[in-house]
Amino acid sequence: MASGGPEIEQLIQLLARLPGLGPRSARRAVLHLIKKKDQLMIPLSAALDRAVLAVRSCEVCGNVDTQSPCSICADPRRGDAGMLIVVEDVADLWALERAGVGAVRYHVLGGVLSPLDGVGPDDLSIDMLIRRAPDYREIVLAVNATVEGQTTAHYITDRLVGSGAKVTRLAHGVPVGGELDYLDEGTLSQALKARTEI
Amino acid sequence: MASGGPEIEQLIQLLARLPGLGPRSARRAVLHLIKKKDQLMIPLSAALDRAVLAVRSCEVCGNVDTQSPCSICADPRRGDAGMLIVVEDVADLWALERAGVGAVRYHVLGGVLSPLDGVGPDDLSIDMLIRRAPDYREIVLAVNATVEGQTTAHYITDRLVGSGAKVTRLAHGVPVGGELDYLDEGTLSQALKARTEI
Repeated sequence: MASGGPEIEQLIQLLARLPGLGPRSARRAVLHLIKKKDQLMIPLSAALDRAVLAVRSCEVCGNVDTQSPCSICADPRRGDAGMLIVVEDVADLWALERAGVGAVRYHVLGGVLSPLDGVGPDDLSIDMLIRRAPDYREIVLAVNATVEGQTTAHYITDRLVGSGAKVTRLAHGVPVGGELDYLDEGTLSQALKARTEI
Repeated sequence: MASGGPEIEQLIQLLARLPGLGPRSARRAVLHLIKKKDQLMIPLSAALDRAVLAVRSCEVCGNVDTQSPCSICADPRRGDAGMLIVVEDVADLWALERAGVGAVRYHVLGGVLSPLDGVGPDDLSIDMLIRRAPDYREIVLAVNATVEGQTTAHYITDRLVGSGAKVTRLAHGVPVGGELDYLDEGTLSQALKARTEI
């Protein structure tokens, strides 16, 4: 392999481990980086250095930020709403923030219960959630609509009995802009059951 | 956007400029990096720093390497074969090296002639190719089979008249493992014309 020395080879191998990139696209990405050394490679190198130093996990909610407690947990206005949204992953938290769901707080579980993969309640941030619950009026379980996600939601609902908070889940239904024709039967029947008056 | 501070946001924007990654997959990649900080983010940061310092363009052939002349140009055995393969891009050079084409040397043009995009002969490494040509017995024009690639090949062939080197091009034909049914007519008719005895 004479594709340019060990430094380049190592960079390709590391980039290939990113989701969405394989060995072939990582090689293309590295060539692009080398071609745009001043505009892209050096800024990226500096940005990575800065991020390595700055990024930490929020000790309260599990979000990723440059401060802990994170900017969401540290914002007092977000506590006033009394709504805590429970998500599996930081990516889900970011998705909800992009959707502009309003002045809410979050709790990142760090995964879902999965006995087959050896993931039990102690591997998730559930105890912390139980401790936080009494400070909120409503806990929204925004876990994925998978079997593991729903199992996790059931388990958390049981644990939250007596916390005083109302426990809710996201609505099922037709995605905005979606065509009925392409939807599965489960979603359609849920959407019909949960129909609302116009 | 409360997705974790300016350091993270900047990293997402830079990664999104890599080929094969968009804003969405860059965000996923950054989350992956943060989750695997010790195993991936810190090594990647270090590898980028090293590559920024080490990588340079070969002054002879245009290949990318950590030395100039590059390891291919510096290898005396590769000169003995007398074959110089002309490619558009470093990616093509790497592809030929992966294919194990043997002890050959390369010349990277840095693009193709494209009057519409304002790319003329002076924008490519053609003069350097003409100077290198007398040292080789055969010049293989391995440019892409596009209109621009073929125009560039014609132009170079004209310029190489009198250099003493034989000028050849890659064979057209059926890709290995390819099905005839899916091939375009141009390739099929070329493959029939260039048929060989079994």
